[in-house]
Amino acid sequence: MSDIQREVEQLGVRARAAGRVLATSEGQHRDKALLAMAAELRRSAETLMQANQKDLAAGQQAGLDAALLDRLTLNSERIEAMAAGLEQIASLPDPIGEITALKPMPSGIRVGQMRVPLGVVAIIYESRPNVTADAAGLCLKAGNACILRGGSESLQSNQAIAKCINQALATAGLPAEAVQVVQTADREAVGALITLSEYVDVLVPRGGKGLIKRISEQATVPVIKHLDGVCHCYIDAGADLDMAERIVMNAKTQRYGTCNTLETLLVDTAVAKTFLPQIVERMSAAGVELRGCSQTVAISPTVAPATEEDWDTEYLAPILSIRVVDGLDAAMAHIEQHGSGHTDAIVTNDYQRSQRFLRAVDSSSVMVNASTRFADGAEYGLGAEIGISTDKLHARGPVGLEGLTTRKYIVLGDGHIRQ
Amino acid sequence: MSDIQREVEQLGVRARAAGRVLATSEGQHRDKALLAMAAELRRSAETLMQANQKDLAAGQQAGLDAALLDRLTLNSERIEAMAAGLEQIASLPDPIGEITALKPMPSGIRVGQMRVPLGVVAIIYESRPNVTADAAGLCLKAGNACILRGGSESLQSNQAIAKCINQALATAGLPAEAVQVVQTADREAVGALITLSEYVDVLVPRGGKGLIKRISEQATVPVIKHLDGVCHCYIDAGADLDMAERIVMNAKTQRYGTCNTLETLLVDTAVAKTFLPQIVERMSAAGVELRGCSQTVAISPTVAPATEEDWDTEYLAPILSIRVVDGLDAAMAHIEQHGSGHTDAIVTNDYQRSQRFLRAVDSSSVMVNASTRFADGAEYGLGAEIGISTDKLHARGPVGLEGLTTRKYIVLGDGHIRQ
Repeated sequence: MSDIQREVEQLGVRARAAGRVLATSEGQHRDKALLAMAAELRRSAETLMQANQKDLAAGQQAGLDAALLDRLTLNSERIEAMAAGLEQIASLPDPIGEITALKPMPSGIRVGQMRVPLGVVAIIYESRPNVTADAAGLCLKAGNACILRGGSESLQSNQAIAKCINQALATAGLPAEAVQVVQTADREAVGALITLSEYVDVLVPRGGKGLIKRISEQATVPVIKHLDGVCHCYIDAGADLDMAERIVMNAKTQRYGTCNTLETLLVDTAVAKTFLPQIVERMSAAGVELRGCSQTVAISPTVAPATEEDWDTEYLAPILSIRVVDGLDAAMAHIEQHGSGHTDAIVTNDYQRSQRFLRAVDSSSVMVNASTRFADGAEYGLGAEIGISTDKLHARGPVGLEGLTTRKYIVLGDGHIRQ
Repeated sequence: MSDIQREVEQLGVRARAAGRVLATSEGQHRDKALLAMAAELRRSAETLMQANQKDLAAGQQAGLDAALLDRLTLNSERIEAMAAGLEQIASLPDPIGEITALKPMPSGIRVGQMRVPLGVVAIIYESRPNVTADAAGLCLKAGNACILRGGSESLQSNQAIAKCINQALATAGLPAEAVQVVQTADREAVGALITLSEYVDVLVPRGGKGLIKRISEQATVPVIKHLDGVCHCYIDAGADLDMAERIVMNAKTQRYGTCNTLETLLVDTAVAKTFLPQIVERMSAAGVELRGCSQTVAISPTVAPATEEDWDTEYLAPILSIRVVDGLDAAMAHIEQHGSGHTDAIVTNDYQRSQRFLRAVDSSSVMVNASTRFADGAEYGLGAEIGISTDKLHARGPVGLEGLTTRKYIVLGDGHIRQ
């Protein structure tokens, strides 16, 4: 075992011990710690920005691009947002200890399920240092200890944030080891962390597809992961075309870089000639590059021809692919073949087709007459979100506090024995 | 890619296609298929027993022991039990399509979750051929296609059962490929199946600890697994000792070979002198071998001294280890260190300690004043069970139909866009 593996294992041992304390802690103590974390971040704003300056200077020297440097930057506005985020998490109801449906069974025992923390959560993320506070806050609220591994380019910032958090945990009488940051920038630490099954219960990687793919392939710890968001909107023959236009414009142009942004528009042949010219004009006016199937190009010649690759691409950019399809079944077949199981919508006023789409499309969010941009923890009323899962097991779609918990069975008897 | 890998991949491709059909099938059609499966098994009893005779003859020649040959045997009673099991599954409510809590959000959209099938489930199991019908029935009820890989020693029996099932599926108008049995006894097929992530959504290994450990280490498909059941019962100072005796006797002696059988008895120092002599006498009379800590041996000298290894052992046999502990915290520390997270019980009339035990013990089932033997899908009202999960993610404890499903978000709007 190398020094780094030993170091990571020690993080695991300490996290497990802290998690045990958190598991039986009262919600009000965890909330008190969250509020103390917020106060400590605000109070330490200057120190945080100084630490961040070191990361920024190193990043400039290492030639990081402007977008990355921007994501790395901590200013007073972003520090305030972190603090406010923690206060918001504190205001959510405590998910832990809830017992659902304690039902009497024929034998006389009563059986229910109690929501309890998962234990230890490891989060691996890229440059943005605010994830350190967000992730720590969510894990703490759900009664989990966490081990955080941010990008090496934000190490100074993350350590400074962690210092505030540890201070606040101690103030609130909770173990400081409930939140630990991996102290080394060495990549070996990631390898050690994702195989630390004895001490880590679940792994949440956040970042680019490459990072997530690599981690899930190598991890032995279970992963809650989000790969890509190739989201579709299907305009059905039964659609109100003004509504369709409004939804499609919002789904594509409200923000380009998010995973719930529309990437492929599917249009029923029956309405293609009416709908395409109007949406092509609006999209072009908004500066969106359009790539279409041959039928689309025939109707709207300003649209460039799409390649097969376009249908599988998450652009995260002002580009939209458009395909004319022969009704609902063809639309669903396209989504099944090319979609990523993230978020897909139908626009229609036809009852039967709306219900078929809802039932049959196998994605984490399926929508009728609404913009795909709604696929989000806050919009779904989850209060906060640790990510969006495109997996099917455990947590699917936006993952809030519930996704960071598990349920155990509890049985209450009065001396009952099995016959 | 080898021939066997290609063959297994083809099973995956066909299962995926069948799963697609099942996902939108009506519950009554799946139930009709389940009833047809039961009828077909009854009608083919003679054929099934003939196929089973071939397995038994080969097993005898291969020198399988009597216990294994017994588990392998299909007689008319066991065939009737398989058929009745399928009818019972048919009588359960359809889990698919249920929408929970469709709630209006501040934006105006309504957000809920719909229960849907996982897709394709692969089950890998050892000798008992009845698993073929049970597992196929549960998967079908939950709208999943399944790929079954039984022990090579039961290949003829499994194929004969599968033939009945496929016949019944076709009769009911559902794709016969909804249930497929791996046709080769070659072990390479298992390796191919557990890494077939594109076509298999979840893996349920059933069998000995060795099999399950090996499979979970090598699988890239997510696994719902059950390792061992080192179950504890803690007799608290506040226990009714007659109740304690009744529960402990039931938990240990009702059946020795099940995973929810008691393996270690923990007794509070405060009641050890009273309780131990009475339970030692009863256990010895029942033919249970006892192994105790030094304090136990001091109080009841007929008990043999336990070794450290005893605390970690799932005996699955008439052996019980006994340890005297200094109160609730020591009991919970023992359970945490030596338990397997399966099922643990406290016997007490002390309210506060009962609640602490319920909350703090991190096992899939935690009980107060009830026998550990209750940890079972049927006793919990799940109707049927595919296994007991000692994992924390997705399904924990007895896994019924719900564990074979997932929930997707559904969003209903009326032209809503995100602001």
